[in-house]
Amino acid sequence: MYSFASISYFSSLPPSSLAIGRHVLPYPVGEHGIARYTMLHGPRQSRSRHPHHVISVQWRDLLSPHANTSLGRPIRVNINIDQDLKPCVEDERTIKLPKSYAMNGGDGNYSYAQNSSYQRGAVDAAKELIKEGVASKLDLKLLSSSSTINPFRIADFGCSTGPNTLLAMQIILEVVEQKFKSEKPTTQLIPEFQVFFSDQVLNDFNTLFQSLPPKRRYHAAGVAGSFYDRLFPTASLHFAFSSSSLSWISDLPEEILDSKSPAWNKGRIHYTGGRKEVYEAYTAQFAKDLETFLNARAEELVVGGLMALLIPTVPNVMNSSETTTESEIDLLGSCLMDMAKMVRNVEKL
Amino acid sequence: MYSFASISYFSSLPPSSLAIGRHVLPYPVGEHGIARYTMLHGPRQSRSRHPHHVISVQWRDLLSPHANTSLGRPIRVNINIDQDLKPCVEDERTIKLPKSYAMNGGDGNYSYAQNSSYQRGAVDAAKELIKEGVASKLDLKLLSSSSTINPFRIADFGCSTGPNTLLAMQIILEVVEQKFKSEKPTTQLIPEFQVFFSDQVLNDFNTLFQSLPPKRRYHAAGVAGSFYDRLFPTASLHFAFSSSSLSWISDLPEEILDSKSPAWNKGRIHYTGGRKEVYEAYTAQFAKDLETFLNARAEELVVGGLMALLIPTVPNVMNSSETTTESEIDLLGSCLMDMAKMVRNVEKL
Repeated sequence: MYSFASISYFSSLPPSSLAIGRHVLPYPVGEHGIARYTMLHGPRQSRSRHPHHVISVQWRDLLSPHANTSLGRPIRVNINIDQDLKPCVEDERTIKLPKSYAMNGGDGNYSYAQNSSYQRGAVDAAKELIKEGVASKLDLKLLSSSSTINPFRIADFGCSTGPNTLLAMQIILEVVEQKFKSEKPTTQLIPEFQVFFSDQVLNDFNTLFQSLPPKRRYHAAGVAGSFYDRLFPTASLHFAFSSSSLSWISDLPEEILDSKSPAWNKGRIHYTGGRKEVYEAYTAQFAKDLETFLNARAEELVVGGLMALLIPTVPNVMNSSETTTESEIDLLGSCLMDMAKMVRNVEKL
Repeated sequence: MYSFASISYFSSLPPSSLAIGRHVLPYPVGEHGIARYTMLHGPRQSRSRHPHHVISVQWRDLLSPHANTSLGRPIRVNINIDQDLKPCVEDERTIKLPKSYAMNGGDGNYSYAQNSSYQRGAVDAAKELIKEGVASKLDLKLLSSSSTINPFRIADFGCSTGPNTLLAMQIILEVVEQKFKSEKPTTQLIPEFQVFFSDQVLNDFNTLFQSLPPKRRYHAAGVAGSFYDRLFPTASLHFAFSSSSLSWISDLPEEILDSKSPAWNKGRIHYTGGRKEVYEAYTAQFAKDLETFLNARAEELVVGGLMALLIPTVPNVMNSSETTTESEIDLLGSCLMDMAKMVRNVEKL
């Protein structure tokens, strides 16, 4: 059995609130929003149906006073497996783990490049939504009045090594190009494009750069660093994109590691099936992280810029026991715990 | 014995000609140019004395008509050792070599990061020259009239993995920042800086990104590709820099591989001690490459932008037999030829 939910959402921002699909979040649905909701049981039926959100945010709204205070309670999030190993290694010696993690590099059997067709599906599914969003919300006249729109700068936050980021950037470029062709905001028909591929410092940019199409229609650049920090100069981007990345929170909530806290997660690597307090601790961390992300991007985007985010989600309408996510992650967590214990035992010898 | 020549040069561009030190090149010396010339024999006496040129070019001059036609005969150049191996593998099967090469990656014993203190010396030596050049030639008022100067964008062409590029970028940033502080071209005292580290696609950007100072005062980005191609959008850079890189020509001159040509180099990997025709073939290739480089940068720099180039050179006043370069490279070439022959012999078995 394979069951998952597909929720795609693409909305504009009401003046001072962020609208995200009501099926998942307690946020109000924006009046111009379009909600799509599909739930499947049984074998995966279509590659184009995936549990992702697409949120379009026009930053002239978000930059208004109090905009960021209305984020409310966030969607449920994936967990940071590596960080969750911490409770296992709390013996005499501290095992140093890097602060940031990236997908497996290279293009071998276990690389992200060879194991990300699921994530590619999200990009495929979002193509039409991005097209609609750019057509209806990207205001080239506003853009060109507030900044230069040549070159048109696009950034992918959490690009990994490809090939998905290359597909996503190509889609955005074509859609924006079409917009320029139809609206002709300047005498020059089509601007040059500069595409920034951004991911953690430990991301394998070498593989990414080597997989760039030789005859691409954009100037490419890589930017290394956490998207929870500032990565670009103020007002220097026209389009920000992120797919299958914002589910990675910046750090483990401290309380889930504290055996005296009601939110203690007993070394488990996920919140599903855990106590309400565990869920709330993850939720609070995600809310904090998402706000940090949005604040950083608000600085980096030009006035009138556009952002499209694809975030893996679990719908509230499903009990956690109805999803395969829980059992899959519990199995994975159990393996990781065993491995961590083995390392600890070996070190004690 | 250790002998080498130190030549540093920093000149402005006369209206339609490129001035480079007359000690090395048949170009006229710019009227504002300052030539420094030192020749040492014996053990290296000072890390700050190296055979490098620093050329400052204000692109409003170079962009004028016929500017690129006056490049004249170029300096003598280093060779591309890998490319020069081609004559050794001209047997029945073609051994595919990558089109581009980069310095050794990582930070191990044989990495560029651990074996580039000589190249660092060039950057150290150029510091004062860059300072003088920025002080006297970077026209912030002109710059701010033709483009936005915030963020101020700097690019290093041929950055390799560090640490030299980090030092160079820091020097340029500080010098430009000082200029802003003293001239105050806008109401905002200091702009944000965006620094682009550029090198071949096969360069080890992973090592470079991991060695970026965490508390840097600039937004960093990596750009992969040959600097003999366009790498940036039109008019998007304020300062272009290159050090110890332009000595790498884009390809071997064909005639030196042709046994029927008077320029045939008999499989040797350098022009020194070879026929006049060999030297001229390398010279012509360098002239072509440098013009390609300058044309690409002319498109990428904003009007009023500045460029500083440090190029390893051999002075004309020395006979090739007076330099150690020849004997060192002949020894290296002999080893490489032996290795290539061994590979060929093994493959024939």
